[in-house]
Amino acid sequence: MTQKTQIRAGGRSARRAARAAPLADHLRPIRPGMEGGRYEPLSPTDVDRIHNAALEALETIGLADAPDSGVAYLTKAGAVLGADGRIRFPRALVEDVIASANRTVTLCARDPAHDLDLTGTRVHYGTAGAAVHLVDAEGCNYRECGVQDLHDAARITDVLQNIHFLQRPMVCRDIADNLEMDLNTIYATCSGTTKHIGTSFTDPAHVAPAIEMLHMIAGGEAAWRARPFVLNSNCFVVPPMKFATESCQVMEECIKHGMPVLLLSAGMAGATAPSTVAGAIVQATAECLAGLVYVQAIKPGHPVVFGTWPFGLDLRSGAMTGGSGEQALLTAGCAQMHKFYDLPGGAAAGIADSKLPDMQAGWEQMCSNVMAGLAGLNMVYEAAGMHASLLGFCHESLILGDDLLGQAMRCVRGIEVTDETMALDQMRAVCMDGPGHYLGTQQTLGRMEADHVYPTLGDRSSPKEWEEKGKPNLIAKAKARKEEILSQRSAARFDPELDARIRARFTIHLPA
Amino acid sequence: MTQKTQIRAGGRSARRAARAAPLADHLRPIRPGMEGGRYEPLSPTDVDRIHNAALEALETIGLADAPDSGVAYLTKAGAVLGADGRIRFPRALVEDVIASANRTVTLCARDPAHDLDLTGTRVHYGTAGAAVHLVDAEGCNYRECGVQDLHDAARITDVLQNIHFLQRPMVCRDIADNLEMDLNTIYATCSGTTKHIGTSFTDPAHVAPAIEMLHMIAGGEAAWRARPFVLNSNCFVVPPMKFATESCQVMEECIKHGMPVLLLSAGMAGATAPSTVAGAIVQATAECLAGLVYVQAIKPGHPVVFGTWPFGLDLRSGAMTGGSGEQALLTAGCAQMHKFYDLPGGAAAGIADSKLPDMQAGWEQMCSNVMAGLAGLNMVYEAAGMHASLLGFCHESLILGDDLLGQAMRCVRGIEVTDETMALDQMRAVCMDGPGHYLGTQQTLGRMEADHVYPTLGDRSSPKEWEEKGKPNLIAKAKARKEEILSQRSAARFDPELDARIRARFTIHLPA
Repeated sequence: MTQKTQIRAGGRSARRAARAAPLADHLRPIRPGMEGGRYEPLSPTDVDRIHNAALEALETIGLADAPDSGVAYLTKAGAVLGADGRIRFPRALVEDVIASANRTVTLCARDPAHDLDLTGTRVHYGTAGAAVHLVDAEGCNYRECGVQDLHDAARITDVLQNIHFLQRPMVCRDIADNLEMDLNTIYATCSGTTKHIGTSFTDPAHVAPAIEMLHMIAGGEAAWRARPFVLNSNCFVVPPMKFATESCQVMEECIKHGMPVLLLSAGMAGATAPSTVAGAIVQATAECLAGLVYVQAIKPGHPVVFGTWPFGLDLRSGAMTGGSGEQALLTAGCAQMHKFYDLPGGAAAGIADSKLPDMQAGWEQMCSNVMAGLAGLNMVYEAAGMHASLLGFCHESLILGDDLLGQAMRCVRGIEVTDETMALDQMRAVCMDGPGHYLGTQQTLGRMEADHVYPTLGDRSSPKEWEEKGKPNLIAKAKARKEEILSQRSAARFDPELDARIRARFTIHLPA
Repeated sequence: MTQKTQIRAGGRSARRAARAAPLADHLRPIRPGMEGGRYEPLSPTDVDRIHNAALEALETIGLADAPDSGVAYLTKAGAVLGADGRIRFPRALVEDVIASANRTVTLCARDPAHDLDLTGTRVHYGTAGAAVHLVDAEGCNYRECGVQDLHDAARITDVLQNIHFLQRPMVCRDIADNLEMDLNTIYATCSGTTKHIGTSFTDPAHVAPAIEMLHMIAGGEAAWRARPFVLNSNCFVVPPMKFATESCQVMEECIKHGMPVLLLSAGMAGATAPSTVAGAIVQATAECLAGLVYVQAIKPGHPVVFGTWPFGLDLRSGAMTGGSGEQALLTAGCAQMHKFYDLPGGAAAGIADSKLPDMQAGWEQMCSNVMAGLAGLNMVYEAAGMHASLLGFCHESLILGDDLLGQAMRCVRGIEVTDETMALDQMRAVCMDGPGHYLGTQQTLGRMEADHVYPTLGDRSSPKEWEEKGKPNLIAKAKARKEEILSQRSAARFDPELDARIRARFTIHLPA
């Protein structure tokens, strides 16, 4: 076939025909775990200085308030308990731990198709947080959130292609008993999605019964241990540089039961961490390295996510802010430290300070999300649905976030430069022999679906078409999509026999 | 003073007191022209391949349709006119032109405080485009736009800190005569802002009268030539690889009169440029290099902005789309080619496909804007106010864009890593001797204004405060701000004597 015959006359009808054919999965333009890393907010010298400052902080300042068990693990590993009660970490100990840590972590999902490979700079977006409000986007109202809202968030996440995992985004405010809350959080999330799940425990004693439920869901302890599909999001430090005694005990329990751990250091830059971006990164890095030593001392190779998770602060009011440029830099800088250590890492992005899914929310969520992805962050937590600086979660915003994150992931995929994509042959054919445009070329048709991400709810119509459609409202479209999703039978729900057994053993608040 | 005494007890009152002091200009957290470049969408090998493909396209395909004058200039410089009417560019010619081009371009503004230094990777955000509609954000309506709308856009731009220049974003649809339209575009923009201005001409014959008006505004030809504050945005090519004959003649006229030129190649990827991101960048690069040869052949060292400006296409419909991830990559990739050539460059970002300033518009505008800035694009055109894939311009969105771009510029500024910002001393003092938090440290107070960008209209209040304020609506706030700006006397307006002279000489459509 000559170049000339590759040019077709009719553009639009040919494009329509090509589009009717379904796309093979490996040809989808974006997939979970595409590799980022082309954005490096820190120079190599900067990275080295931050690393060394973190080591110096660990060696000279250390961390206070380790539980007795932690003191035992850490001193046995080579850390030093000072007369001031602080545990200090010799540089060589930390370097050895970094060198020997688990670099090939896969976070499992109940459906293996949703497993997350955290090697290299593979990027995954998902939810997280502890919002106390559900946001009614259409009615512009905030109300306390409950277990049904959490379950609905799980069900919505289950069907959205660009939300790759579900860490609990909301607290079940309608369950007063903490043990019941922790157990129902697991029930509500696991029965709503077969994607990877993250959760927290309010008490070390809650881990064992939770594990009992997870064994039931997995089909026994061996199955659970082979593929643990729930991670413990663990705030093991109270910044600055203090262990959170009880959370450390939770962590020890989780490790015993084979549950992966997100070592989460959530300092507030300007309050519990230095106000500078670099300083907050240094401290978070030091704290997570301490956590890594701790985990490695308990069980070498245990799967850990390095959760340097500093938050921004509005220094005028002292209130948290997550939608700022400073937040985007905090998170991207942390991602680069993960890359430097070649450790699986997670941090927070996508937080809106705006109370509603409006233009402000759109720019706030995109800024930190796309920068986190371009920086190659493995686990981008709080990436969708989060409003009011983490106080509110919004189902409609979660759905719109799927479009937003699809676009961010397209940017993460980046620019492929090959002879084929540089298209000199096409250019020659089109300009010198052809029709003077590329609309109908085979290459254009072939890449229409493989290269381009199309929004689901985002509107690209012309003003004329938009008026003819009655000027569709974005929030109303998201609400309709939510109702459509929730009206369908969920593929993630437990089979009736398992469900009955769980309900016989535990107090489940969701209706059967 | 010991470290210990640096810690103050009262955080909030001290922060309030510090905030009352005005910030010196050089201490502002963000300024026009901060340096980007930490995001490199292309590897060094990719850049080299694209450069070589562009040279090969110029050498073997060349460009058609140069005007006779252009043929003369170009062949005299060493380009070759083929029997097929295409002008081809030997590799050595292009390399010499790149080497000898003007790298130290400053685009002047009527007020020198707004001059734009385009060296290195300094980033500036501004408007551009040829929208035919004005968007009424509150009423959700599109209507034809006119000269008053353009003047209002200029006046709004004049007071917004993060909109660094005004290229004409809208066409005066209420002026039927093309000469009057071109002249009134200059009048409406120059009388509305003292920032740098960009505009187009529909006919080469319109340049001379426009220059006459500009001489009047500048205070004579010498003053104009010393500091030309208006640039010609020139679509000198009709992609793929054809000169736009008449625009080239406009360009020749502008160069004669000392007006800087934006060499604008606006291919549509999938229609008038290859559908691949890499292919569209190759073609745009080739076309702008041809333009550069042309300008250098006329007047060596003439100030030029390298305007590789490819647009995305929704291949399903064949309609333009500017809010996609593909668009963000197109622009960021072009920025890296400018950096490679070390030439002043411009491209399009910030375009929303959304018809209104809603959440979709927010994520679309931020995505390409922040990536363009991080990639170090000198001139980010169409960065604010643009909707419906460039068909609509919105004053309220322009105002909200000021917040959005402030945040993007904070990201461009990046992370400073120094002993001071890494804050080990502070960490030591706070953890070991101090109050256990950083709220009242001198360092936190000192950096409250110098490091942090606060939104003007973006809302960071808690749900409770937000409810108490009556749930302020973002669009309503932007509209109120617009009315406030337009109700004030503009600092940019011409003095009455000059205005009378211009009105005596030209037909001015704006009321006096």
